[in-house]
Amino acid sequence: MNDATSTSLSNKLPLGFRWSSVKAGIKASGKLDLALAVCDGGAAAAAMFTSNQLVAAPVIVGGRHLTATGGRVSAVIVNAGNANCATGEPGIDDCRRSCVAVAEAFGCVFDEIFPSSTGIIGVPLPVEKIVAAVPAAKAALGDRIENAEAFATAILTTDTKRKIAQASFEIDGQTVNLFGCAKGAGMIGPQLVPHATMLVYLFTDIEATSAELQSLLGPAVEESFNAISIDGDMSTNDTVLLLASGKSGVLAAEVVREFDQALKRVCDDLAHKIVDDGEGVTHVVTLDITGAESDADAKTIARTIATSPLCKTAWSSADPNWGRLLAAAGRAGVVFDPAQVLITIGGLPVFEYGVRAADFDEAATHAAMSEREYTIMIHLGPGSGRAHFTTCDLTHEYVSINADYST
Amino acid sequence: MNDATSTSLSNKLPLGFRWSSVKAGIKASGKLDLALAVCDGGAAAAAMFTSNQLVAAPVIVGGRHLTATGGRVSAVIVNAGNANCATGEPGIDDCRRSCVAVAEAFGCVFDEIFPSSTGIIGVPLPVEKIVAAVPAAKAALGDRIENAEAFATAILTTDTKRKIAQASFEIDGQTVNLFGCAKGAGMIGPQLVPHATMLVYLFTDIEATSAELQSLLGPAVEESFNAISIDGDMSTNDTVLLLASGKSGVLAAEVVREFDQALKRVCDDLAHKIVDDGEGVTHVVTLDITGAESDADAKTIARTIATSPLCKTAWSSADPNWGRLLAAAGRAGVVFDPAQVLITIGGLPVFEYGVRAADFDEAATHAAMSEREYTIMIHLGPGSGRAHFTTCDLTHEYVSINADYST
Repeated sequence: MNDATSTSLSNKLPLGFRWSSVKAGIKASGKLDLALAVCDGGAAAAAMFTSNQLVAAPVIVGGRHLTATGGRVSAVIVNAGNANCATGEPGIDDCRRSCVAVAEAFGCVFDEIFPSSTGIIGVPLPVEKIVAAVPAAKAALGDRIENAEAFATAILTTDTKRKIAQASFEIDGQTVNLFGCAKGAGMIGPQLVPHATMLVYLFTDIEATSAELQSLLGPAVEESFNAISIDGDMSTNDTVLLLASGKSGVLAAEVVREFDQALKRVCDDLAHKIVDDGEGVTHVVTLDITGAESDADAKTIARTIATSPLCKTAWSSADPNWGRLLAAAGRAGVVFDPAQVLITIGGLPVFEYGVRAADFDEAATHAAMSEREYTIMIHLGPGSGRAHFTTCDLTHEYVSINADYST
Repeated sequence: MNDATSTSLSNKLPLGFRWSSVKAGIKASGKLDLALAVCDGGAAAAAMFTSNQLVAAPVIVGGRHLTATGGRVSAVIVNAGNANCATGEPGIDDCRRSCVAVAEAFGCVFDEIFPSSTGIIGVPLPVEKIVAAVPAAKAALGDRIENAEAFATAILTTDTKRKIAQASFEIDGQTVNLFGCAKGAGMIGPQLVPHATMLVYLFTDIEATSAELQSLLGPAVEESFNAISIDGDMSTNDTVLLLASGKSGVLAAEVVREFDQALKRVCDDLAHKIVDDGEGVTHVVTLDITGAESDADAKTIARTIATSPLCKTAWSSADPNWGRLLAAAGRAGVVFDPAQVLITIGGLPVFEYGVRAADFDEAATHAAMSEREYTIMIHLGPGSGRAHFTTCDLTHEYVSINADYST
């Protein structure tokens, strides 16, 4: 298995897809803001959406389309710069119009088009700009790495980096490819449910049914995108979409383990890249919680620490203030006995059985926390529940990015 | 009824109490750090403590003492600068030693002493400094306003202001007085349960049993200290203590309504002062949630908005980004229909029935949010559940205060 960081993507892209992006004039910056992905003949699809009570129009429409087609997608149209959320029935109509425009361009039915939007909430979607840009997006389609990268670029908003990941495996001389891309730097605290403004698109050329894809996507998302947090805020537009073209000729049912590993590898890679590019992030912190009564308890504690302003500000200055870790864990609503707790930071002991570790070395711990990435291990007790969670610090830059408002 | 802001406290203090504070050398700054309050003959007491799984030694010892005495307190000893938390059995022993030192000074039994600590977690309590300072604290006791203010000053840590409140009422020519003081500016997201490093001390001269006081304290705390948030972090030391000397000669049982009102007035006043003095706060925001299925649902939504980094950073720049309010409400785990929701900010309509309000005036809303204090009203639907919650913005200054660490 290879990943994007070590291998050229050029000859590893899944067969059966074409990508493009154009400037439709939705982003005030004038950057690429409309992304198009097409699978001629249609792909089997599985998706997960935000569990927010407020859901954007494209999440509603995308869900309906998948239901109507039994999980079949011919094209994905994504705009950045406007979330088409809290826009009422007109927002639904605008979303449908963009799907119809794409369907007409490719001679398919409109419910085979999967829509996504990301950007500001509550502002009417400039659908005319999208409709007008579809021909140019169609003309720009291609199956080369620069096309896939163009797609991955246009979906970005406050992100500072393009986020792509790739995995491939061979089986009996045949190659299965998986390519994924993501956007998201703020309002990241996903809680995706099967029917998720983090946007993730996963493309593969394996042959699978929509149901097979859905059963693999759920666990992969739970351990990756549902195990990260930047600010704990959950978007109204979060979406993860997995499309399988079948063009590799390899049946998913015959390589479940290999495909599952490749899928999880790509999801983990993208999830980590989202946190690494989080708004104002200077430290990426992995929380390894073990010894809880259940995995759910471990994840609840991890999420509470991951979203604690006091923990996150301490991380920003590499402050080994382990008391804040314990205080946050203690308010998570999970019962545990501090006298059984062990904590290490960057492998260094800081807390043991109810008191500061005998070997606690403040200077060494501070040095470990000065690295861009490190792990905090919290062992709670004799249980077998565990969680692996990736989060980040809270910095002045985060406040600046999100408080930036000018009349 | 009068309050501290409009009336001199000097002749409104409850009878039967004396207060003092001294510099024991616990705070690195060298400021006042040991506070003592004494009720000769003992006061009936009720208390509520943090529901954190990690609780400080004084919370454990204080709870045991109240149980042992059936709710009787002769003196309160509070140190600031060290939380005596995560200090194990030695921390319990240190706490007990400080209680014994106070008991010996006043000729009472040690379990009539109520201890509190606030400050850094995980560092052994310098109990020798406390024991050594008790005689000076005893010598400084007095029943004048400057004595009560000295008590209220020594309990502060990162607070920038002393927080005191007062209420009095007359009944048949007799006066009942209530004086309260509080500390807390960070790690404020209390969830107090009856058996809470926000520290609140309430002194009254009404005559009441411990049980009567407890039954009145619970609802007053639920609507005040349990309805505020600065950073959502819950301390390991949160404590609210209500002491009644009985010296007014007025029986609580005969003036329940008047006393309840006075108690709630003092608690509301102190709770508001805690948020107003929150770390880095530039805006105090009151959330009025109505139309929920239950009060609990309304409070859950209020708390989720109150602790949302995206909402709090928007408030810091007076950004009328109401989409963030809706997105936070939507992830609270409470079911509601956005098409039924009404939102006003500072009385101005911003969102109505699923879409941006027709009369939304961005400039006027920005102006309303530029005030130091304003109210956000969110009406969710046809239910009768409601919550009133006070919170604040998240600023660069908050990050600076909590990321301040030097090796």
